[in-house]
Amino acid sequence: MLTRIDHIGIACFDLDATVDFYRTTYGFEVFHTEVNEEQGVREAMLKINETSDGGASYLQLLQPVREDSTVAKWLAKNGEGVHHIAFGTADVDADAAAIRDKGVRVLYDQPRTGSMGSRITFLHPKDCHGVLTELVTSAERRHDDQG
Amino acid sequence: MLTRIDHIGIACFDLDATVDFYRTTYGFEVFHTEVNEEQGVREAMLKINETSDGGASYLQLLQPVREDSTVAKWLAKNGEGVHHIAFGTADVDADAAAIRDKGVRVLYDQPRTGSMGSRITFLHPKDCHGVLTELVTSAERRHDDQG
Repeated sequence: MLTRIDHIGIACFDLDATVDFYRTTYGFEVFHTEVNEEQGVREAMLKINETSDGGASYLQLLQPVREDSTVAKWLAKNGEGVHHIAFGTADVDADAAAIRDKGVRVLYDQPRTGSMGSRITFLHPKDCHGVLTELVTSAERRHDDQG
Repeated sequence: MLTRIDHIGIACFDLDATVDFYRTTYGFEVFHTEVNEEQGVREAMLKINETSDGGASYLQLLQPVREDSTVAKWLAKNGEGVHHIAFGTADVDADAAAIRDKGVRVLYDQPRTGSMGSRITFLHPKDCHGVLTELVTSAERRHDDQG
């Protein structure tokens, strides 16, 4: 079950400049940064609020680190802007399977590693009214579930 | 101060079909619907979670009700997808003024009425790294503040 808006993924050309914009304009601070080699992005997570399911909502700022990454291609076509949205769940595997059974294309056969050790998958935007949609189980939540 | 992701605004061609997609795929239910004549949209708010500032995060599904609305023009150019993001604040007037002083274009001289009696304004996407950004003070929060 999807229980929160986990993050909004925003693609940018210059991560440092974009982080600086969010800090100076709104006061949002960087909570975490990492490079995801598989996704081909450098990213900064800005924590905006905590959520009623025990998680949190973030902005995820994404800069491509190689020209053949999907985010680089997306930026070349669309320019900077909202790249995807992500919903949080305690069990991404179960939700992805249930959603696949409803006829929505799930982009990965098995969930992969996302920000901060999370477990993620994506749904095809053409099956989601134009919205690239990610499902996320956070590392903390996975730990909680495992007791 | 911006204290939550208030909503993600998603533009669609057929509100009923899009509401049905979110219900059947994810189990998200409609919390509120209305027509905003000034914005030229019919909208459905789907409440996803509550937030640590006492508010909540929603998906806002938007269908234009006239061809000259900004959302209709946006859809004609971009197709369905994420149209804007919105941050919640207890005082949209103060935050909009402070952000304007930082050189970001605020689209309204004074905040206007948004969903569920909220008070809203928008920031120019070209000043926000491509993201059309809304600031929202909810009606409940305004009442609390006056309380």
